[in-house]
Formats: sequence, C-alpha cells, structure tokens
Amino acid sequence: MAALVSLIASTPEPDRLVAASARLCYSPGSACDLARDVTGEEAVRLLKHLRRSGHLSPFEHASFVFAVDGISRACSHQMVRHRIASFSQQSQRYVRAEKPEFVVPHTVGEVPEALSCFRETLEKAYEAYGKLVALGIPQEDSRYLLPNACETHLVVTMNARELLHFFSLRLCKRAQWEIREVARQMLLLAREKAPFLFATAGPSCVTDGTCGEARPCGSPYADMEDLLAGH
Amino acid sequence: MAALVSLIASTPEPDRLVAASARLCYSPGSACDLARDVTGEEAVRLLKHLRRSGHLSPFEHASFVFAVDGISRACSHQMVRHRIASFSQQSQRYVRAEKPEFVVPHTVGEVPEALSCFRETLEKAYEAYGKLVALGIPQEDSRYLLPNACETHLVVTMNARELLHFFSLRLCKRAQWEIREVARQMLLLAREKAPFLFATAGPSCVTDGTCGEARPCGSPYADMEDLLAGH
Amino acid sequence: MAALVSLIASTPEPDRLVAASARLCYSPGSACDLARDVTGEEAVRLLKHLRRSGHLSPFEHASFVFAVDGISRACSHQMVRHRIASFSQQSQRYVRAEKPEFVVPHTVGEVPEALSCFRETLEKAYEAYGKLVALGIPQEDSRYLLPNACETHLVVTMNARELLHFFSLRLCKRAQWEIREVARQMLLLAREKAPFLFATAGPSCVTDGTCGEARPCGSPYADMEDLLAGH
Amino acid sequence: MAALVSLIASTPEPDRLVAASARLCYSPGSACDLARDVTGEEAVRLLKHLRRSGHLSPFEHASFVFAVDGISRACSHQMVRHRIASFSQQSQRYVRAEKPEFVVPHTVGEVPEALSCFRETLEKAYEAYGKLVALGIPQEDSRYLLPNACETHLVVTMNARELLHFFSLRLCKRAQWEIREVARQMLLLAREKAPFLFATAGPSCVTDGTCGEARPCGSPYADMEDLLAGH
Repeated sequence: MAALVSLIASTPEPDRLVAASARLCYSPGSACDLARDVTGEEAVRLLKHLRRSGHLSPFEHASFVFAVDGISRACSHQMVRHRIASFSQQSQRYVRAEKPEFVVPHTVGEVPEALSCFRETLEKAYEAYGKLVALGIPQEDSRYLLPNACETHLVVTMNARELLHFFSLRLCKRAQWEIREVARQMLLLAREKAPFLFATAGPSCVTDGTCGEARPCGSPYADMEDLLAGH
Repeated sequence: MAALVSLIASTPEPDRLVAASARLCYSPGSACDLARDVTGEEAVRLLKHLRRSGHLSPFEHASFVFAVDGISRACSHQMVRHRIASFSQQSQRYVRAEKPEFVVPHTVGEVPEALSCFRETLEKAYEAYGKLVALGIPQEDSRYLLPNACETHLVVTMNARELLHFFSLRLCKRAQWEIREVARQMLLLAREKAPFLFATAGPSCVTDGTCGEARPCGSPYADMEDLLAGH
Repeated sequence: MAALVSLIASTPEPDRLVAASARLCYSPGSACDLARDVTGEEAVRLLKHLRRSGHLSPFEHASFVFAVDGISRACSHQMVRHRIASFSQQSQRYVRAEKPEFVVPHTVGEVPEALSCFRETLEKAYEAYGKLVALGIPQEDSRYLLPNACETHLVVTMNARELLHFFSLRLCKRAQWEIREVARQMLLLAREKAPFLFATAGPSCVTDGTCGEARPCGSPYADMEDLLAGH
Repeated sequence: MAALVSLIASTPEPDRLVAASARLCYSPGSACDLARDVTGEEAVRLLKHLRRSGHLSPFEHASFVFAVDGISRACSHQMVRHRIASFSQQSQRYVRAEKPEFVVPHTVGEVPEALSCFRETLEKAYEAYGKLVALGIPQEDSRYLLPNACETHLVVTMNARELLHFFSLRLCKRAQWEIREVARQMLLLAREKAPFLFATAGPSCVTDGTCGEARPCGSPYADMEDLLAGH
C-alpha cells in the first residue's frame, strides 16, 4: 500500500490557544482570562506577527496526533530521528509479519525488470522469515531477514512548532519521496484544524524564497499550492 | 492572591488515545483502525498494565494546557526548570507592574511581626520600582528591584508522561508549598479528563509505598485521597 | 562482524565535574571556585548521595561520545529511539552497500539449516540491490531491498544521566541481545572514565534488587560483576 | 559584581570530533576509524560546509560546561528557559543570603538619584530578609523578599548546536544587556576551544546580514569583531 496519514487527535482550537498564550507574554491580566477572551481577528493578527518574527514558542501549546500507515521501515527510521516528538510504533519483535506487506518505490515500479527483481527478492525474504520462525528462531531474530521495504505503522505526536520544523526539512525536494509524502499529508490535515498556524509551511523556498541546500534540487516549489499538490 | 490553576485545553479522550497507541506496539493492524476501535474496558486494562510496567511512552500522546495565575516568581523559576514542557510567561520586561501584587507565604502570614515587615518591605520595593520607571530607567532594569514574591502568570503545557514525573517530584512534601499547591490543582484537573492515566500519581510514598529522599519528611501521605486533599 | 564500541571522546574528569556542580546547589561561593576546589574524597561522598537520592540532574554535565560499529539496522532503529542523545549515522541514501555486511543473530548461527537459509537470502538481497543500482534505480530506493541485518555505523553522544537511563532499559535481559551487548560495552568504557558515576548501573534487579517487568526474565543478574561479564 | 563566565570543561578537540562524525554520514568505513583519521584540513572544509548548509546535528557531539558567576536572578530566569541544556544553580532554599550581593544595571548606575534609591531599597530588602529568618521564618519563604537583582551562581552545559542557537537569540541587541554579556563571554571561551565550530555565530545580522525582529534595534553589529568586542 501507500502511505496513509490520519489525524486521530489534536488540541482543540489550536489557532486561538496559541494566540492567547502569546498574548499573555506582553499583556497584563490573568492567563485564564486572556485564554478565554482572545477574538478570532486578534488571533489572526497575532499569529502572523509571531511567524514573521520567529517567536515560535507559543506554537508548542498545540499538539497533533497522527496515525501513519503503510510506510516502509526506511521511512520510519527517518521519522523517529525527530526527537521533539512522541512515537508508538508496531514492533517487529512482538508482531509477526504474516504476509508480505511492503512499499514499492516509484522508481522501481517504473522499470519492469527492476520491479520483478524487487518483488521476487522480497517474497523470498518473507518466505525465509517464515521458515526461520518455523525452525524455532525467535521472531525478533528472524526479522533480521526482513527488508527496509517492510511496512510499518505508527502513531506520532508533534506540537505545532516541531511540525513547522519537520515540514521545513521533510517537504524539501531533497528529502526522500516517502517521508515527503507523509509530511504533505500531515500538513494538509494540520491546516484543516489550524489554518493560521500553518498558513505557510515547508522548505525555505516556499517560506522565504531562498535555498540553503548545498546541492539545490533545481526545481523549487512555486508556492504553497504547488507544495500541497504534491508536485 | 493564591495560586489558581485552570485547564484551558487538552487532547480529547486522553485515556482512549493512550491505550490505542500502546495497543499498536503489540498488535497487527493499522494505526488508524486501532485508534478507532479500542473499547473503554480494554483501555482501562491496558493503562493499568502500562503504568505497572513503567512503559510510559504512549502517555506522551496526551497533552494538557494549564493557565497558572497568582504564583510568585520564586515558584515560576522552579516550574520552568522542567524542560519537557512548554511555557508562555508574562514578561516583566514588557508588562509594567502597576500595583503591588505578591504572594505571601503561610509561614509569614502566621507571624504578625514578620507579616508587617514583609508587607512594608514589598510596598517600598514596588514604590521604588515606580520611581525608577518615572526617572526613565527602562522597565526591564527597574524590575531588578521587584521581589521573588512578585506575582506572575503563565501558560504551561505538559504531556501525561511528563505530568506524572512532575507530580512525583513536586507533590512530595519536601517540595516547596507553593509549587506543591500548583501541582495538586493540576492533578485534580488532569484526573477529571483522564481518570485512568492519573489513577495514581504523586511521590513514591503514594505510588510505591517507599521513599528515596535523603531527608524524608517524616509524614508521608496515607494515600491518593490524602494527597488530593492537600494535607 | 559483531558490535564493537569505542569511546572516542568524553568530558574530562567526569566524576569531579558532576560532584562540583552538585555541590554548588547547596553551598555558598562561586561556581568557578567550587568547580576548582572539590577533592576526590568529597566527590565520592557526594556522588553516592546523589545516586541514592535520585538527584541526577548534575550527572548531565558529563557527556560521552561513542563510535558504534558493526551493528544491524534493527539495533540502530532501537538506539535512535533514545531522544536525549545525539546521533550521526552512516546513511544508506549516500553510502553504497558495496558488499554484503550483515549481523547474524546467535540463535540463527546455532541452527545450521537456519544459518544457510539466512546467508543465502541475504546474499540474494545484496545481489538484487546491486542489480537495481546497475539498472539506474537510485541508491536510496534500491536499499529498500536491504535487510534489517545490514550493518550500520554510528556516533552516539549521551550524558551520564541519560546513560544511566539507557543502561536501566537496555541491559535488562528482556531487551534484545544486540542492543544489550552494545550497552554492556558502553558501560565498561564509561566506567573506566567515571568509576563513581557508574559505580552501579543497569536494570532494577542490579540497582535495587527489584523487577518491574510485566513478564520477568526469570534469571535476574546476581550483581554488577555478573552484568558486566555479559552473562 | 558583574557577570563572570569560566569554561570549566569541554569535549576535547571539538572541531575534529564534529567533523569526523559528520564525515561518517557520507563515507564508507567504520565510525572508529573515521574519528581517528580526520585531518585538520579536512575538518575545516567539512565544518564550513555543515554550517553553510544548516546540517547542524553533528555539532551536538561537542559539549561545553561553563561556570557563571555574579548574574542576577532576572538573568538566570532567562537562562534556564533554554531547555536543551543542563543547569545546576545555587539554591535560595538551601543557601542563606548572608550579605547583600546584587547586580546593578548600567542604566541605574548612570542616574545618581536612581542608584541611591536602588541601593537603599535593596539593602532594606536584605535587612528584612535577615529579620524574617531571625523570627524563625524558613529560609525558603524569607527569600520571597529578595529582589530579582540578587546574585546567583550556576553551572550550565550546552552542546555546540544549542550554543549557536543560544548565541543567535541572546547576542541580539534586543536581548537584555545582562544575558548578552554572559553570551558574549561564553562565545569568546568556546571559540578558543573550537575556532571553526564558532567561526561565525550570533544574531542573523552577523551570520546572514539580515534581521527578522519585529522591532529591529536600528544599530546591527558590523561584523564578528564588533560583536565580540561587546559594543
């Protein structure tokens, strides 16, 4: 299958919450009253200001919980490198790989000879895995045969500040296609809940019109629409 | 005034969310389906198991946002030492201390001579602060005169795992009375939303019947009721 | 090959540094003088006290940098789940797997039929990987064929507090054998530099004589010697 | 007194260590060999590349431990807001304020009327503190009278990546003068040990020739020399 991301939970009213928290830093009054009283208009104005000036700590109060299905272990290994985040991942030590479920890269799918070699190799790997388990090798050791392509499932929680950081790195065209697609789906879902927190997001070609990559991709995104469309 | 904590936002259905995320680690199936399908009964059983075995990472998916009003800067200095947390605090650089607002420790309030000395000293400090501001000294420098007792306001976000850690340290009777009271109110509010995540919480005298303090308090809590009552 | 850990750098005099930092919390005087003047004897006494009372934040000032060679990607995926740590890992996107280098679990090595199946499957996987690369499939996608057994190399930095946490989880006999062996070598190396910081370390059967596992291993370590010997 | 920072420990050969760790990501070979074999010239070239492209995670392997003396509690409250750092701070709960030791802002020192008001108020605060302690009020509560100006002492550890982040925020002219001076001394000390890691550092006016502040200071630094001179 292909990566499929769902938003399974999030802090209610994230735009307003972040704006109210930011307002507290600069205003007299109680934290509780400020949180209650911020209007939608004020929130929008404040969030624009925060993003422009890079004052992102209030963004941390809003958090988003995603279910990520159908990604490879290659991709999950990249995801768990983000340390300001929380992960629950299906364990290969405890959950048996009953049948071959793996991710096929587009580049492989487009070359018939590569695709048949890919499929054949993976089917043999799963078969050998099954054989080792049948021979009494513990699941946790039999899995050493399983490929990076092997599908995994995880729940990941990030706050809005870390999400912006994640999007800046992982939506860049120099990131691998699989995590880029996961990031794109996460951004689409987060924007529905928090249109102003994520009004702009992504690599610096989108947010600042610049590029810091040592080896630029050569085809930067034109704008947010372009990025969200997954071109 | 005295510390007043409000819960201004939290991840919806925290008990179920944490249980569903934990279930994913050990079960076949998609993350999205598991999140949808966990029953209340299963959740309760799973959460008990997680807490008993110290497998607390799934607790991180649930996060809680509190407004904390009427605490001293002595107390806020202790709170911001917790690093797996997010804070927005009213800034003394930007918000003028218009009138004396400060916290009076109980121990001071109970000794008339101490109380009158305390009040008088603080009123003079605020007066001098106003004088410096009037003389053109920047607010951020005039505030060097303001006392630890000075009231502050903040928004703090922690996930359920960090909250359990916070409660274990800050509800201990060896912690200072002010942060203990903040922690107690936070626990009461969090338990309303997530009765199973916080079924037990607090220092080890409550959770394990043991004490690791070098200098024990001598009057450990009898049980959760005792702790929640603020004795 | 098998896991081979080297200590490539560490904070000088970690025992004394941690003790001096702890002393500052409770003593008058300047931080600089306290750091200079702590004696070896005082340091030992202080470190014992800190460990017994669980006051571990001063342990964070001492940090240790390890080179970890010859571990599987299954093991590295577990290692990078530790978030209070820094990692630099050889990238399969950029470094070509020139020849089959993989980790063979003991359980597999002991069953001839399993071992030959294991070797054969992996050699085919590497062969197929080479074929895909030759067909023009990008290295980052060809690697989807590579197995969890594939060797990787990394540099990992942790402070002494996180190391103690790492050792408590990863030296438990319920942890997988490969990360247990990595942890054991790390502990041996760290103890050489900081005998008092790591005087005791490991799972709770060693440090407290208790076990919190839901399914205990049934053969807890007798003591530190037993643990360090890798039994 | 005024802020006085000392470097009391650091990872040996930080430039080479970071370069070697970065090289591992892109090179075949063992982590241990790469760490041993990197030449000075290679290191310089690699570090330039890493900084230019924002690939800063290898900078985390080098860590620096500072003693910070003679700063106000206003300043320490700002410092401990940095969460990717470790702190040991002299506790006002346990260490009695024997005599008035406080920080005088320059702006106050330059206005005689302000200065005499400042001194007088603080001396009275310390006097009242002593009186409360004498009346039997616990030290931890008596200290509610002590001012933000009160001197404190701490040990702080940060890795090179967090230091660069710290310098970008706290050397900006919009930061308060006291933490700016602490940051400047920290940078001078870190540069001595790691000239290439910290070849450039500071706010974006120095590192990129740009400014993101909502209300710019109007007098950006000319260059690193200007910044290091403390103008």
